[in-house]
Amino acid sequence: MAAPLEKQPAGSTNTLSTVPLERRLARWMLQQLGEPPVRFVLWDGSVVLPQGSKACFDVVFQRRPALWRLVANPLLHFGEDYVRGDITVVGDLAALIETIYRGLELRRIREGRPAWQRLLLRVRSAPSNDPRRSRHNVHHHYDLGNDFYRLWLDEEMVYTCAYYPRPGMDLEAAQRAKMDHVAAKLRLQPGERVVEAGCGWGGLSRHLARHYGVHVTAYNISKEQLAYCRERAREEGLEDRIEYVEADWREIHGQFDVFVSVGMLEHVGRENYAALGEVMNRVLGPDGRGLIHSIGQDRGEPLGPWIQKYIFPGAYPPTLAEMMDLFRDSGFSVEDVENLRLHYARTLEHWIERFEAHADEVRAMFDETFVRTWRFYLNGSLANFRAGSLQLFQVVFHRRGQMELPWSRAHLYE
Amino acid sequence: MAAPLEKQPAGSTNTLSTVPLERRLARWMLQQLGEPPVRFVLWDGSVVLPQGSKACFDVVFQRRPALWRLVANPLLHFGEDYVRGDITVVGDLAALIETIYRGLELRRIREGRPAWQRLLLRVRSAPSNDPRRSRHNVHHHYDLGNDFYRLWLDEEMVYTCAYYPRPGMDLEAAQRAKMDHVAAKLRLQPGERVVEAGCGWGGLSRHLARHYGVHVTAYNISKEQLAYCRERAREEGLEDRIEYVEADWREIHGQFDVFVSVGMLEHVGRENYAALGEVMNRVLGPDGRGLIHSIGQDRGEPLGPWIQKYIFPGAYPPTLAEMMDLFRDSGFSVEDVENLRLHYARTLEHWIERFEAHADEVRAMFDETFVRTWRFYLNGSLANFRAGSLQLFQVVFHRRGQMELPWSRAHLYE
Repeated sequence: MAAPLEKQPAGSTNTLSTVPLERRLARWMLQQLGEPPVRFVLWDGSVVLPQGSKACFDVVFQRRPALWRLVANPLLHFGEDYVRGDITVVGDLAALIETIYRGLELRRIREGRPAWQRLLLRVRSAPSNDPRRSRHNVHHHYDLGNDFYRLWLDEEMVYTCAYYPRPGMDLEAAQRAKMDHVAAKLRLQPGERVVEAGCGWGGLSRHLARHYGVHVTAYNISKEQLAYCRERAREEGLEDRIEYVEADWREIHGQFDVFVSVGMLEHVGRENYAALGEVMNRVLGPDGRGLIHSIGQDRGEPLGPWIQKYIFPGAYPPTLAEMMDLFRDSGFSVEDVENLRLHYARTLEHWIERFEAHADEVRAMFDETFVRTWRFYLNGSLANFRAGSLQLFQVVFHRRGQMELPWSRAHLYE
Repeated sequence: MAAPLEKQPAGSTNTLSTVPLERRLARWMLQQLGEPPVRFVLWDGSVVLPQGSKACFDVVFQRRPALWRLVANPLLHFGEDYVRGDITVVGDLAALIETIYRGLELRRIREGRPAWQRLLLRVRSAPSNDPRRSRHNVHHHYDLGNDFYRLWLDEEMVYTCAYYPRPGMDLEAAQRAKMDHVAAKLRLQPGERVVEAGCGWGGLSRHLARHYGVHVTAYNISKEQLAYCRERAREEGLEDRIEYVEADWREIHGQFDVFVSVGMLEHVGRENYAALGEVMNRVLGPDGRGLIHSIGQDRGEPLGPWIQKYIFPGAYPPTLAEMMDLFRDSGFSVEDVENLRLHYARTLEHWIERFEAHADEVRAMFDETFVRTWRFYLNGSLANFRAGSLQLFQVVFHRRGQMELPWSRAHLYE
């Protein structure tokens, strides 16, 4: 019983029948993917089934070249052909990608990463993140227009993992809970000076200034975001407690009690972690402490080629081991690490729901390609967090040898 | 005003006066140490003062060779001459060592590690920890006799960091709180199978079997400890719920829900972490999870030469980054890291108090050298934890991609 197709095969090249080699290639791909519950539907309507499992998803190759491209470079072309509409999916896109990731992971634990994947990962060059490149990369993603992000982010425009201590919470409450969780981990005292590296649309700086009585100096290199930050601080009477600075993290100066960075490390580049640690060391006083919140991973592989090309040029999710470069030589000790991976999955579910509710508006702002690009990005990210290919680490640190520490983390849960 | 000396200079060589070079050497040592508030009292009664700070401690060189040895290899000979009685200390020994570590750390952050320290650290060879060597090393320390450890450990004979969620707790309560904290982090369900790598005198295995209804298989290579474990399990009617196995961690086999190891990783050797991760992978089921509790450090330097020679041959406290070798390739994700450094300092304070209360009995069991060796070891460890040269990491992990996780850590504090 065939599930209905998102789009029926059409067009001149599609009328060509598949040849046996193509059906064998499709079969080989399913085998490489560990026989996931996925049916390949080819452009002439012929079907290739997985061995040993019942198919829950259809991947439809609308045109012949999509199959050949997928075989040549699956990590890049699945996304490209999905966006182009040459591959369509019947079933939940995030669930499909999650299923494939889980199958690959199982296979890998048993057999190691297949040679073709190792090769594809190796040929990609390491991203460079000097200040000029960082500006370009940040502009690429974060300056798409505040009006676009306003459509599907929460009211405070927080574009990082929320925190759902009660899983039924809505996105607004979970973003507030995240900011309170960060504040509690930092043990903020009224009047303290906080420096924030990479402040996005300023949600955290406003929250900390308003509810914790601290002074925040917030750095960002996205002009659009800073304009928004400054306007909201003015509107909400927080101008005297928050200073926004258009500068790279390398240019942070002054003396602070607390260093906080939520969702910036992904864009810093792993070759720069020790330098960022030196900045933290330079600007923090003798009782200095801080928190780094970042997407991470278990192994230390580059982001997939599709997301690097279309969504986050120059981004890299570090392993916990790599994050330690921030602290080791700069005289800090790690106090607490919390993995909020499932919270990012939940956040993405909320974002996707809102994004789809506003898809027509997004299409009117940009075009259908943009909608499909973002749909693929958001669902792919959700799949990555569910399958554990991505993690979310919140790391709390303090000056080495600090004696004034709480005797338990119970205060975070009171 | 001179503080009273622990032991007055005496003996033929000591009647010799210091020469100017010796006073300059003593002065140079104080300078190298960052001018701590320490007064050097030489064998002829002459005194060398630190610059810029008031002395709180006297380090007394009872005999001339002690000064020359200290200059030649301070990391080894301070301990050796303290134990021999050729160096004595007026003031709190732990506080003295802590002060010196803090001074060195400050100086190092400013200037990097001095050349003489780098040289000393480099010439030490990396310890090897093959199974035969592990047996020898463990025997060296843990088979000193259960009667000795019984004098100053808690009633459950737990020889690892306790947990003081309320700082006024006594040692017994804090060891129980640690075991409950570990159990809560592991989310134990009655009937689950737990494997423990390195079970000491069995305190944790008894606690988990008794209070959490799990079945524990506990591995150890110390004969004395295992004999004690088996006897207590028999006495307390826990024989059907705990199995003790005399074998190395490499020999762990079977299938379990939970892997736990408290205070063993320090003896595993960093070159073996990936192999230990493979053991964890092999014995844990699809919902497998675990906890590793280990002394650690921020940087990745060998233990001091004195403690390696006299206390823990082959031991190494890993950095958090190094610990990640346990999880990365074996298919686990880190869920939670808690640094309990100050809890180990408090534990050591309690151990030292009890050790000193029983010093006469220890002397009768062994001799004065043994008492001074252990005094130096316990106080030196306390100083290391206070100053932040040592940390204590509790790392919780689970199978990558696990979806059944608690939404917050609040359950640990209920």
